[in-house]
Amino acid sequence: MEPLRIGLCGLGTVGRGVVELLDRNRDLITRRAGRELRIVRVASRTARPEVDLGGAEFGTDVAAVVNDPRVDVVVELMGGTDAARRLFDACLGARKHFVTGNKALLAGQGAHLLEQARAVGIAVGFEAAVAGGVPIIKALREGLAGNAVEWIAGIINGTSNFILTAMSRERRSFADALAEAQARGYAEADPTFDVEGIDAAHKLAILSALAFDVRLDASAVFTEGISRVTAEDIEYARALGYRVKHLGIARRSTGGIEMRVHPTLVPESRLIANVDGVMNAVVVHSDAVGSSLYYGAGAGALPSASAVLADLIDLARGNIVTPRLHGGQRVLPMSAVETAYYLRIPAVDQPGVLAKVAQILSFAGISIEAVIQREQAIRKEAGRQWVPVIILTHRVIEAAMDRALAAIQTLPEVVDTVMRIRVEPLDDHA
Amino acid sequence: MEPLRIGLCGLGTVGRGVVELLDRNRDLITRRAGRELRIVRVASRTARPEVDLGGAEFGTDVAAVVNDPRVDVVVELMGGTDAARRLFDACLGARKHFVTGNKALLAGQGAHLLEQARAVGIAVGFEAAVAGGVPIIKALREGLAGNAVEWIAGIINGTSNFILTAMSRERRSFADALAEAQARGYAEADPTFDVEGIDAAHKLAILSALAFDVRLDASAVFTEGISRVTAEDIEYARALGYRVKHLGIARRSTGGIEMRVHPTLVPESRLIANVDGVMNAVVVHSDAVGSSLYYGAGAGALPSASAVLADLIDLARGNIVTPRLHGGQRVLPMSAVETAYYLRIPAVDQPGVLAKVAQILSFAGISIEAVIQREQAIRKEAGRQWVPVIILTHRVIEAAMDRALAAIQTLPEVVDTVMRIRVEPLDDHA
Repeated sequence: MEPLRIGLCGLGTVGRGVVELLDRNRDLITRRAGRELRIVRVASRTARPEVDLGGAEFGTDVAAVVNDPRVDVVVELMGGTDAARRLFDACLGARKHFVTGNKALLAGQGAHLLEQARAVGIAVGFEAAVAGGVPIIKALREGLAGNAVEWIAGIINGTSNFILTAMSRERRSFADALAEAQARGYAEADPTFDVEGIDAAHKLAILSALAFDVRLDASAVFTEGISRVTAEDIEYARALGYRVKHLGIARRSTGGIEMRVHPTLVPESRLIANVDGVMNAVVVHSDAVGSSLYYGAGAGALPSASAVLADLIDLARGNIVTPRLHGGQRVLPMSAVETAYYLRIPAVDQPGVLAKVAQILSFAGISIEAVIQREQAIRKEAGRQWVPVIILTHRVIEAAMDRALAAIQTLPEVVDTVMRIRVEPLDDHA
Repeated sequence: MEPLRIGLCGLGTVGRGVVELLDRNRDLITRRAGRELRIVRVASRTARPEVDLGGAEFGTDVAAVVNDPRVDVVVELMGGTDAARRLFDACLGARKHFVTGNKALLAGQGAHLLEQARAVGIAVGFEAAVAGGVPIIKALREGLAGNAVEWIAGIINGTSNFILTAMSRERRSFADALAEAQARGYAEADPTFDVEGIDAAHKLAILSALAFDVRLDASAVFTEGISRVTAEDIEYARALGYRVKHLGIARRSTGGIEMRVHPTLVPESRLIANVDGVMNAVVVHSDAVGSSLYYGAGAGALPSASAVLADLIDLARGNIVTPRLHGGQRVLPMSAVETAYYLRIPAVDQPGVLAKVAQILSFAGISIEAVIQREQAIRKEAGRQWVPVIILTHRVIEAAMDRALAAIQTLPEVVDTVMRIRVEPLDDHA
């Protein structure tokens, strides 16, 4: 059988990983795919490749890759959205299949791109866009295809999980843990994309579109990062039987599909509460299977290359179908989402404060599940004594909590911004 | 597009689950598959179906299902190997695709069956044969297709995991926990198949053939069940930082592929050590991704039906390829497998016993990592005082341990059979 001939655009970490993995497991891949996977042409901004490209032609012009008549499929690993979009458009014109790990491209323009690809009959593979080496796209599209998905909850940003794990294990501050993540190469010099939840929102938008038939649009995801979480929050959460994880959550509710990314208290007995370091994990709760969980490396050269190769092998077998995303489902606004809450209220240490807070919550229809106020946590600052009052509430809609928090925040006894972290019981131990 | 027309043989738990799930999620499945999945004919031993079959024709003759010219694919959910084999042969003759969850059939004759299926060009799907609703077959064959697998370790028998979990949480005996499993319908009246590891060996044989190109043959799997594990063993394991799980393990070693099913001490920090109750989980350690884990319900009507439907939807999309199993890799005999060991040695409580045991181990080249001998564990029976001596060893090949155990067992101070449980560190926290 003819080889599947690959044009590779981008020779950064993942691009080099694809070259390396294909070279290392060539025989095994040929056997599994039923034909050889051969990189015939490579384009990169760098003047010379830092990796052995075998017999592949090398240059700096991506258009030459797309237009090379030998190329069956273009692998886009350049990053950025503008150049990647131009490359996709060129593939459309040239009728070349397109494999990418570019979650920003997909989360911004994916619905339109996939529609165009279906119209001209090219396949688009994007397993590498979410959770690196974990085949979660395939699980959702194929393994669970007979199921109606009820909810998804995932640790889909390794950087945030690394930072929260370091804060939890060593009681370090966010800034300190972030600095370590940067030193290890897990976080960028400007970490905003990871720690403010933007990357996770992109990935959740992709998962949600596949699972719930909601429009692929990251701007519809409620997005909150981990930068305001403190080691103290993590410690109080632990005292209450929870771990703090940065989760992407999508759920079918009455009224629409919830899509949200935020720090979350998860019961410590859940498997996903015990996923630490840079690892990723996604729980899918579906009607037939119940909870299933998919865990593994979310980033890195070889895990991401593994996902790219899974798409290429599917393509070589004739097994890739570009999904049809209708996007007919409504997104539930965050104000209508119902969760439980952890609140940390920095309040002056005097009688009656807790009563006032409890009254505000009660007035908003919010019932309290637990309170922690520890004498040893009392602090003296600027001539006043204050103490963090920790409250765990029962479930209530976000709009009610917003109103209650606004009222609590204006109490004269509250000395600083109230911290709110959403609580999700999840279930089935996953 | 024409519907995919299904002939269903067997209307037990899983068969009824398939009917129910297909009916419940009909629109969603049609959309995802790109065409309708329609059950046109059903055969079952029961005189009348206990489920609404829609417009499907019903009878007791499976041959009529295969020979019905409308049927594109036969779903075998009858169980047993003889009738299932005859049904497969009929499908071969009639050129009908074949979807099954019959692990015993596959583990015994799978290599030959798949070869015949490839020869005549029919597809064989068997996602339901391992770990129920968890799409682990698909992950191995497709999601990780670019990877060389280094090892697999899985909780693949929910009954055994339920029993071990009950023994661990409530310090109950094996017999007591088994009785509860039976009362809940998790274990058969004759539980041998589950608790002696036979079912797990079938599943491991299937996973190993896919991952390691070893011959699909359950009789080559070293098989030990959980019936000799005591609540005391679980408690000592916990004191040493381990949980006891019944694992199926396959590993590429120098000299061949290890294939073994046995109770295993796993460090408590591993995710898989925290998979409890009837749930299944499989860790796959592969060269590119490292450790990835797949968790979910391993049995039950709807999880298994979900796996059957995944195969059917793949078939409807034209995406199913019957694997080519070369089986060229050699199996490493158990005597050459290297692991660490937990030993529980019931010995009379007198000076010098531990020295004798240590000397035997040392003579066999086995070094000791930890020893527990507790005064409060001393028992008096038949006029003697004895005590369990717990030893954790470093890694050594099984043959050396066999020799050492034979020698220890003959010591006059050893009052009962020595218990050995293998220890696996696994890694990457999965």
